[in-house]
Amino acid sequence: MPLNQGFVLASRPQGEARVDNFRYFEKETPPVGPGQVLVRNLWLSLDPYMRGRMDESKSYAASQKLDDVMIGGTAGEVVASENPEFKPGDKVVCVNGGWQTYFLSDGKGVNKVDASRAPLQAFVGPLGMPGVTAWYGLNKIIKPKAGQTVVVSAATGAVGTVVGQLAKAHGARAVGIAGGPEKCAFAVKELGYDACVDHKAVDFAEQFKKATPNGVDGVFENVGGLPFKLASHRLNDFARIAVCGLIASYEGAEKSSLDDLRILLVKRALIEGFIVSDHIDIWGQALRELIDLAASGKLKWRESVVDGVKAAPAAFLGMLKGANFGKQLVKLS
Amino acid sequence: MPLNQGFVLASRPQGEARVDNFRYFEKETPPVGPGQVLVRNLWLSLDPYMRGRMDESKSYAASQKLDDVMIGGTAGEVVASENPEFKPGDKVVCVNGGWQTYFLSDGKGVNKVDASRAPLQAFVGPLGMPGVTAWYGLNKIIKPKAGQTVVVSAATGAVGTVVGQLAKAHGARAVGIAGGPEKCAFAVKELGYDACVDHKAVDFAEQFKKATPNGVDGVFENVGGLPFKLASHRLNDFARIAVCGLIASYEGAEKSSLDDLRILLVKRALIEGFIVSDHIDIWGQALRELIDLAASGKLKWRESVVDGVKAAPAAFLGMLKGANFGKQLVKLS
Repeated sequence: MPLNQGFVLASRPQGEARVDNFRYFEKETPPVGPGQVLVRNLWLSLDPYMRGRMDESKSYAASQKLDDVMIGGTAGEVVASENPEFKPGDKVVCVNGGWQTYFLSDGKGVNKVDASRAPLQAFVGPLGMPGVTAWYGLNKIIKPKAGQTVVVSAATGAVGTVVGQLAKAHGARAVGIAGGPEKCAFAVKELGYDACVDHKAVDFAEQFKKATPNGVDGVFENVGGLPFKLASHRLNDFARIAVCGLIASYEGAEKSSLDDLRILLVKRALIEGFIVSDHIDIWGQALRELIDLAASGKLKWRESVVDGVKAAPAAFLGMLKGANFGKQLVKLS
Repeated sequence: MPLNQGFVLASRPQGEARVDNFRYFEKETPPVGPGQVLVRNLWLSLDPYMRGRMDESKSYAASQKLDDVMIGGTAGEVVASENPEFKPGDKVVCVNGGWQTYFLSDGKGVNKVDASRAPLQAFVGPLGMPGVTAWYGLNKIIKPKAGQTVVVSAATGAVGTVVGQLAKAHGARAVGIAGGPEKCAFAVKELGYDACVDHKAVDFAEQFKKATPNGVDGVFENVGGLPFKLASHRLNDFARIAVCGLIASYEGAEKSSLDDLRILLVKRALIEGFIVSDHIDIWGQALRELIDLAASGKLKWRESVVDGVKAAPAAFLGMLKGANFGKQLVKLS
């Protein structure tokens, strides 16, 4: 049996997460029993939601248990199967394949993908959970009309990348917020954002105002903190804010708040938090649309790749601080 | 021509509104011209939204103009008409009959009512704008399911009175928040709230927690401030908050804020501000339902009545501080 290598959650963070919150392990993969399938994880997706799971059940989902393999979506290949739905060589994505090189499963949460249509790792990125997240928040909460302005924080991240392009497809003005001139240039030149504002710039607030001359009709909020505050002060009537993530606040550094509820009343605006796993009913439609866009070359994205499972903790911690540029992946093969 | 008596807005408030922000006038009603209708206002409705209009266009609507008759809904009787749609004796409600005893109009915003089904003044209360406001926020934003808990601030006010009874009709647990034991007793004994918590009580927070043992699924927010904060900290998954008013903050005393947006994310909750005049399409249905309920004795309410137009400013300022008990009216006849 092959050697499985990975990380368990060793301890819960006190404030900022640290590498010693994770503990490396190696152990032989158990034999594949009846109904089971063994997946060799080729790609591990690193996503901000994992930070919430590391805490003691403050988040929407149950906490990640201590000493369990770290939660994480993976893409890989079936290497052995005693489950009639899978055969060796099948390309699959695993909802929770975990931070490890092999995943033994009863088949639940393991889904075959057609890797002829896009690179395998895209199925844990723009053609997977992050893509569906973008699709849901934009189409079901923000519902932009042509000519409206949609602001997207973490504009070049796994989710934001897709939000901006979908907003453009609706005929909206897409305004990104990202950290640094390089990301902003990529957002505009490659992803098609009409404008992208660098939240690290000293004149961020002024630049943001200039980039939203007609106010803000929709906000896809991945970050919170100051970008949220600025956007909330420029809302138009009937604006919609989809709260997808608040990465600025995950480590307790910067609280994200709505300082004056009168904004919502005066603008008759809506703020809604969501988590894509509540909306399984739309995954099929969303994935079909996203895969079609990707296969026809109309959906672009960028990846940040680190090599080998041992690189996962540092890459994850870097992502929480915006060190990634595009979808953060760990290449396991 | 009869003598018209009333108030114009004399000046904009600096902080709290004061009686000298209004100026009394008397002048002869002009002759009724072609297409016009003269209404003798019998009842003036005093509503919190008026406070927003007194400011320099901070509110959703255009500001009340200085030296114009104060905005206000009225119920009255047609006394002269050169408009084929009205005849003397018709009972009508006027969207903006104003703080005055006579209203000369081209007929726009003047609607005939069937005063055989309910007392005339009810058509500017539970069977008018405040009632439709309650109906919209409850049915279109909160959408309570049987067994869920709906919290209503200003529970015995013109709007809250109706919200609580509609929530009960949906099979929800209705929890009111009101100022003082008398209002709370009325909310439970007369309006049918399952519980009502006195926000003036020293142990308000503790009482509120006890009154919502299963958390909070819906909030009909008329007040803001501390009651909002407490409710927002007890939200269940997929909770909905309809922001109808923030009277605690209208005079700048107490800011209403959502201190941590993570609540919305963790609970996948929604907050939406609304103003009923945006939703003209539902007025017909809402009024039919409310009038049917009232005519069959299934809708209860209470009125706070002051006599004569000269009493309007003080009654209005008192209402902003919760001095009213039920729908605040000025009897003009």
